[in-house]
This record gives sequence, structure tokens and C-alpha cells, in this order.
Amino acid sequence: MTSSNITAPTQFVQVSEQRYAFRRFGAGSGPPLLFLQHFTGTLDNWDPAVTDPLARGREVILFENAGVGRSTGSVPKTIAGMAQHALAFLDALRLNRCDVLGYSLGGMIAQQMAQDRSTIFRRMILVGTAPRGGEDIMHLEKPGLQAYLNDPKLRGYAVLGKIFFAPSESSQAAADAFIERLMQRTQDREPVSGPAVAQAQVAAFRDWESVTGDQRFADLKTIRQPTLVVNGVHDVMIPLRNSYWLSENLPNAVLLTYPDSGHGSLFQFHESFTRQAGEFLASDSAAAPY
Amino acid sequence: MTSSNITAPTQFVQVSEQRYAFRRFGAGSGPPLLFLQHFTGTLDNWDPAVTDPLARGREVILFENAGVGRSTGSVPKTIAGMAQHALAFLDALRLNRCDVLGYSLGGMIAQQMAQDRSTIFRRMILVGTAPRGGEDIMHLEKPGLQAYLNDPKLRGYAVLGKIFFAPSESSQAAADAFIERLMQRTQDREPVSGPAVAQAQVAAFRDWESVTGDQRFADLKTIRQPTLVVNGVHDVMIPLRNSYWLSENLPNAVLLTYPDSGHGSLFQFHESFTRQAGEFLASDSAAAPY
Repeated sequence: MTSSNITAPTQFVQVSEQRYAFRRFGAGSGPPLLFLQHFTGTLDNWDPAVTDPLARGREVILFENAGVGRSTGSVPKTIAGMAQHALAFLDALRLNRCDVLGYSLGGMIAQQMAQDRSTIFRRMILVGTAPRGGEDIMHLEKPGLQAYLNDPKLRGYAVLGKIFFAPSESSQAAADAFIERLMQRTQDREPVSGPAVAQAQVAAFRDWESVTGDQRFADLKTIRQPTLVVNGVHDVMIPLRNSYWLSENLPNAVLLTYPDSGHGSLFQFHESFTRQAGEFLASDSAAAPY
Repeated sequence: MTSSNITAPTQFVQVSEQRYAFRRFGAGSGPPLLFLQHFTGTLDNWDPAVTDPLARGREVILFENAGVGRSTGSVPKTIAGMAQHALAFLDALRLNRCDVLGYSLGGMIAQQMAQDRSTIFRRMILVGTAPRGGEDIMHLEKPGLQAYLNDPKLRGYAVLGKIFFAPSESSQAAADAFIERLMQRTQDREPVSGPAVAQAQVAAFRDWESVTGDQRFADLKTIRQPTLVVNGVHDVMIPLRNSYWLSENLPNAVLLTYPDSGHGSLFQFHESFTRQAGEFLASDSAAAPY
């Protein structure tokens, strides 16, 4: 067994007609930690500088949702549909309780899973994400994002370096290091997501932005798990106020924000993030402060 | 030498006509940590559950500003005036560099000191405070505060238990424990602040709320020190958005917010706070993330 996302083999599990791709590595006394990925991201988009240190205290399980990478099926157009797939995957692995690290899109799926099955998570880490009814979630048509998405000089991971990081010299240096780390995996890679994945996931973001129920954010009160909310102060993909709403309305959440960084603060400050996340996960208190 | 605020003797230092009261205890390899106190608070208002664990890694210095407790002189009506006293005090102690924990009013004084003398602080911790130009700073006339301040059944520390903590059962239990800890010191106590102290400090808050310069919060850009900003999400004395503005506009700040707590989050979650603060202070990185 290998303990790095650079080398961990992609595995597969079948649930009737559906096949899910995943990676599973690491060991330790903590409950397994489920990783739920960002917009269009595959298993190959998990930074080994984040997965590998966390895999030293517990098993980590990187999940590829339906229609992404080598997982079969079509990408659901709602967060609820994606949450159903993630729960079916955990059932197939016979895991009835774990921790979760939901990043961006993955953080929305994690919230939905916690509401659909309140016992599934022990502790939750929500990075660069938004509550249902949040604002300005992944509006790729914004000029600030279009400038990078339409730049013919930027291809592949270079785009991530712009939209996940801040424009400062220090943040762009961190972006370069992040991209180098992603490229360390050379074998057994996932196919890159195409426009169909992106379109369905954007539809899910638009649905997630709509306010449901009588009172905005009231659904967060039912998520009692100790939660760590994390974001970079310059996130342009899912702006910071969404993380503020999460930590103000979740009854049991600590918020940690990072300076000089954007959507990818966990990758930029991977040493701090994995230490903080590790200490948060190591706590068995009923309260989130750690 | 004792290493607890329950028993540390109050000391005095004279600067021409001015006498400052202070306490100094603890030891360790870290730079000394200066504590700057809240509205009307004296040396006796520092919770030993916060001072004592931090004193195990460094010397802590609790400072009583002019006109408070047994410090002579009159209370300045501006934060700038209070910052001058604090700098004069450090000069008298021949300290030209230290760390600082500024709480509420003390956090404003710390910011002013960093601007007046950029070399004085290595690292800063700002708890339950606001930037210059912040909003809703210590408006004791608000109905939500008046209900407690005018309640004849609440006296002394019992008022703090209401206005520093959240109304939840868990937060009120933490308030009771906080008050018990404050009462552990029985000898060599400071005189309680009267209306003259309160009136001058409120005048300083009103001045601090005014926006100066061309651009709101622009002065924060000059504070380059690694900074940890902390608050409870239910702070009614200096609401949370002031901490958001600090961490968004200070170029090198990490924000940590606590659930189920108010202005006194550092007292409620003293174990978490002293661990987080200790790890932040133990870092010698030029960047705030720890």
C-alpha cells in the first residue's frame, strides 16, 4: 500500500449499474476522511501536500462522483443528486460513519449529505464553499474570471493557478508549486473533465444559490457536527461572505481564514492547513473549538 | 516568582510624574507578551485561564493604562493617547520589541502602537476588537446591552457574564466559570473603575469609529506584523464584522472565530484559545498562517 496521492492506485466499486472511481490510502487511529472534490476536478486534482499529511493520521478516501473521471453515469444537475451518489458510495464501502473534507462543490455536497443522513459524519471540514442560498457561487461569466478562462496563453493547470490563487507574487509562487505537485502523478491518471461535466455542475450551483424554506440559512441549524470552515480572503470563485454565513449559522463551527490567498487557500498554506485540520480532526470534543 | 495572575504581585514603574501599575510573570523562550485590557477592565480582569497557560512559554506583562486601577493620571479620550502611555511604559521597562495580545479596547491601542512605532511588535493577537472606522463599537446605549447594564439584580462580574457571553446555556455556564476564576485572586486587588474611566474610554471609542484618511481601512495596510484576529460570532459589544474588516484589510492576518460565544470568546474557549495563540506565537514565520 502506498500513502500518497502521487502513487495510490485508482480503485473502483460497483453499485448495480454504477461504477465509482476512488483512491484510498493512509492509516491511523482517526476515522476515515472522505474527500469531496471541486468543480470539474478529478482524483488527480487533490494536492498530495494536503492529502498525504492527513493520511498519516487516518485513512483518506478520495471520491470521484458520477460522470467525473472514470466514474460512470451522468453528472447530476443538483447537489442533492451528487449527495445521493456519495452516500451510495459510502454504503458500498460499508462505511456508516466518517469525517469529511468538502472543498468548494464538495463542501456543498457534504452539507447536503449531513442533512440527508445526520449520522454519516463525525466532523466536517468545509473549504472555499457556500451554504444553500449563498451568493456569487462560481459565476464563471464574471469579467474577473473570464479574463483567465479565455486567455489563450493559459492552458490546463495554468488556469487553476490564476483562479485558485491571488494575484500577489507570493500567491502566484504558491500556485506554481501547487501545479508542480499535481504533475508529480504520471501514471494511472483520470481523464480530464469536459464541457458536459462543467455544464451539469454549473446547473447545480445555480440551483444551490436559490433560497429554499421560510428563512435563509435556517437549514444549517440542523447540522450539529463540529465543523471547521476555511477560506482565503481573496476568493473570487466563491467569495468569503459565503464562509461567513456558514460559520455564523452553523451552530457548531469554527472559521479560519487565510490572508494573501483565494479559493485554493488550503493548497497555498498546505502546512498550516493540514496541521489545523489534523488537530481539529484529532479532537473528540462535542464542540468545534480545538 | 509566581506564574499566575491569581497571585502575581502588582508592580509599579514611574515615568516622570506618571506611575504605571503592571504584573509580570512566567518564563520561556518566546518574546514577552504584552496584554492590553478591555473597557474599564483592570489587571484583575485578566482570566488566569488565559494568562497562565501563555505564561508557560514566555513572560507575560499585564499593563494598566493611565487613570485605570492604581495607574495614576487621567484616562486619555483617544486611542492615540492610550497608545502613547503604553509605549512610554514599554520604554520604561526597556523593552523595544515584544508580542501583544490586545483585547477589545486593548486591540485598538495595539493597532495604534503598531502604526506609531512599527518595530515595537513582532506578532499581534487582536481579540474582539475593531479597526479605526469600524462600526457599532461599544454602544452601551443599545437596548440589548442596556437590559443587562440596568438590571438591578446584576452587579459587578455578573454583568460581564451577560455582556461578554452568549445567552445559550453552554455560554452562560462558561460565564459562571470565568467569574469564579476572576474571584480566585483575593489579595492585592486593583480598585474597580468608576464612571470617569468609562466616560473617557467611551469618548475614545466614538473617536475611533470616525473614518480618517481618503479610504476606509487603508491605514491597516501599513501593519505588516503577522496577526491573529479572534472573535465570537455572537459578540454584541463589538460585532463580528469589525473582525472581518480587520482580517480582510490587514495584509498578514489569520482570522479565527468561535461559535456559541460573544465578546469573551477567549475566556469561554480558553483551552482552544491559549493553544491556538501559543502556536501562533511560537511561529517565527514572516507569514501569519501557523
